[in-house]
Amino acid sequence: MENLSFADVLAARARIAGRVHHTPVLTSRFFDAAAGASLHFKCENLQRIGAFKIRGATNAIAALDAAARARGVITHSSGNHGQAVALAARELGVAATVVMPRDSAAVKVAAVRGYGARVELCEPGTANREAAVAALAAASGATLVHPYDDLAVMAGQGTAALELVEAVPGLDAVLAPVGGGGLLAGTAIACHGVDGALRVLAAEPEAAADAAQSLAEGRIVAWPKTPTIADGLRTAALGTRNFAVIQRHVAAILVVSEAEIAAAMRTFWERMKLVIEPSSAVAIAALTRYPDEFRGRKVGVIVSGGNVDLGALPF
Amino acid sequence: MENLSFADVLAARARIAGRVHHTPVLTSRFFDAAAGASLHFKCENLQRIGAFKIRGATNAIAALDAAARARGVITHSSGNHGQAVALAARELGVAATVVMPRDSAAVKVAAVRGYGARVELCEPGTANREAAVAALAAASGATLVHPYDDLAVMAGQGTAALELVEAVPGLDAVLAPVGGGGLLAGTAIACHGVDGALRVLAAEPEAAADAAQSLAEGRIVAWPKTPTIADGLRTAALGTRNFAVIQRHVAAILVVSEAEIAAAMRTFWERMKLVIEPSSAVAIAALTRYPDEFRGRKVGVIVSGGNVDLGALPF
Repeated sequence: MENLSFADVLAARARIAGRVHHTPVLTSRFFDAAAGASLHFKCENLQRIGAFKIRGATNAIAALDAAARARGVITHSSGNHGQAVALAARELGVAATVVMPRDSAAVKVAAVRGYGARVELCEPGTANREAAVAALAAASGATLVHPYDDLAVMAGQGTAALELVEAVPGLDAVLAPVGGGGLLAGTAIACHGVDGALRVLAAEPEAAADAAQSLAEGRIVAWPKTPTIADGLRTAALGTRNFAVIQRHVAAILVVSEAEIAAAMRTFWERMKLVIEPSSAVAIAALTRYPDEFRGRKVGVIVSGGNVDLGALPF
Repeated sequence: MENLSFADVLAARARIAGRVHHTPVLTSRFFDAAAGASLHFKCENLQRIGAFKIRGATNAIAALDAAARARGVITHSSGNHGQAVALAARELGVAATVVMPRDSAAVKVAAVRGYGARVELCEPGTANREAAVAALAAASGATLVHPYDDLAVMAGQGTAALELVEAVPGLDAVLAPVGGGGLLAGTAIACHGVDGALRVLAAEPEAAADAAQSLAEGRIVAWPKTPTIADGLRTAALGTRNFAVIQRHVAAILVVSEAEIAAAMRTFWERMKLVIEPSSAVAIAALTRYPDEFRGRKVGVIVSGGNVDLGALPF
């Protein structure tokens, strides 16, 4: 199977330049002391649409030829990816359809519509969603921009790590959260394209630890969707392209509890004055939960996003 | 009366260089569209101790001669200024005493002690506080570092605006919140030292609008301490040095309601992914409450701090 290469990540960077923010890398004496490490936070919460997802969506749509652009794009997402596809498509002059479960938060549906995309509501559940996307794509000829199991999306997500490793020379390890594996696979290829000795680590909620189990068993294991405050990481299973990269490039997947995620999120807000979403706090929580992985090391952390419902905080 | 000069602000900048952060200036398409203006946010919430107060405290203590340093410093504050004096004193090797009301939040007392200062609890109320400070200062010979009515403190606070106007040439106006007037006076002198035509504006809660009334009546008017979520601005009255500067340099003081403060704070968190405290949200709220002041203009905004009790949010 064709899979992601460092050249894809470099091409993605050139393709999305000027369309997404080059986000800052921030440091913190407090978190350095807490982890006994030198930490460098790549702040994708300050990215457009509030998350790294705009990178992959922009790359995937910008890579389409004129005929494909004219037919439009389609995706399914109740979260950041839907907004990312909607915004990237609008800016590239491409029609976008986002399939969202009928029980999506009204504010999220409104956000996608606000970026000019057509929203099609479907019944909840993976089978219903995929059937809806397939029917709509067949009718329109629209190209699917998958949230993670897509080479152009993975390459785009990898540009955040590329910026990080170039901005902070001499890192020992890079840590990113993992859901479907788009960010993690892109991160791994970007890191090892720059430095083959870099230790690439992932963090995942205990309640959705399918990636950790998949890596341990050497096969993709699907988990039922269980509740976690890190709802962005609640994908049922890794994508096949994503898993192939993760198996080869990721050293360990670190799992953290719901209480640890909530506490890490609160501490990050209090100390860094930065709003991060629970999916990002998963990685922050791992920094102190697994001290042997980090103590004495120079570590880059992908802070994936900052889209939070302030009316329903876990603290 | 001797009062603050631009030379004082320039001297403060040299004195505190390397001891405080040169904070970033951030922009937002969303807030620009909401205000119809070009907005430039000076992010002192990302400053050390989470607020601009470290600037004034550091400048005041660093300006002391060896004999005064040996006698130590003292202040009264239940908020950011107490932490600022404690940290600045520790880093300069000076003993610090912070007088705090007995009903201060335990976490704030612990924070001041955590920076190595001695905490003396007093009964609540201005008279009790001042008596306690006077008695302790008389006994020890410690120098009072007043939260705002102090030239060195005012000069230090003005360095934030100095960085802002240098980073963003061509501003039409600069907006800062006002409590006792330390930040506002320093801001005004810094702005007019660089550009005498700059319009210097302040924002204040309706519930603590003593500065607006004072400016209107041409004399310092004290208000009883009424509750406001912007508790950092709840000082009873402007300082005398502060008022003299404000009268001469500040074009208008804009008042906003509690509901407007809470809504602005929430929107800023959601859109900028930055935690700001209610006192900072006072200025953000003014941007849309007073459109005639801002529409079509290039405006700098001092985002004063980000210290918030996440367990007691106003939304």
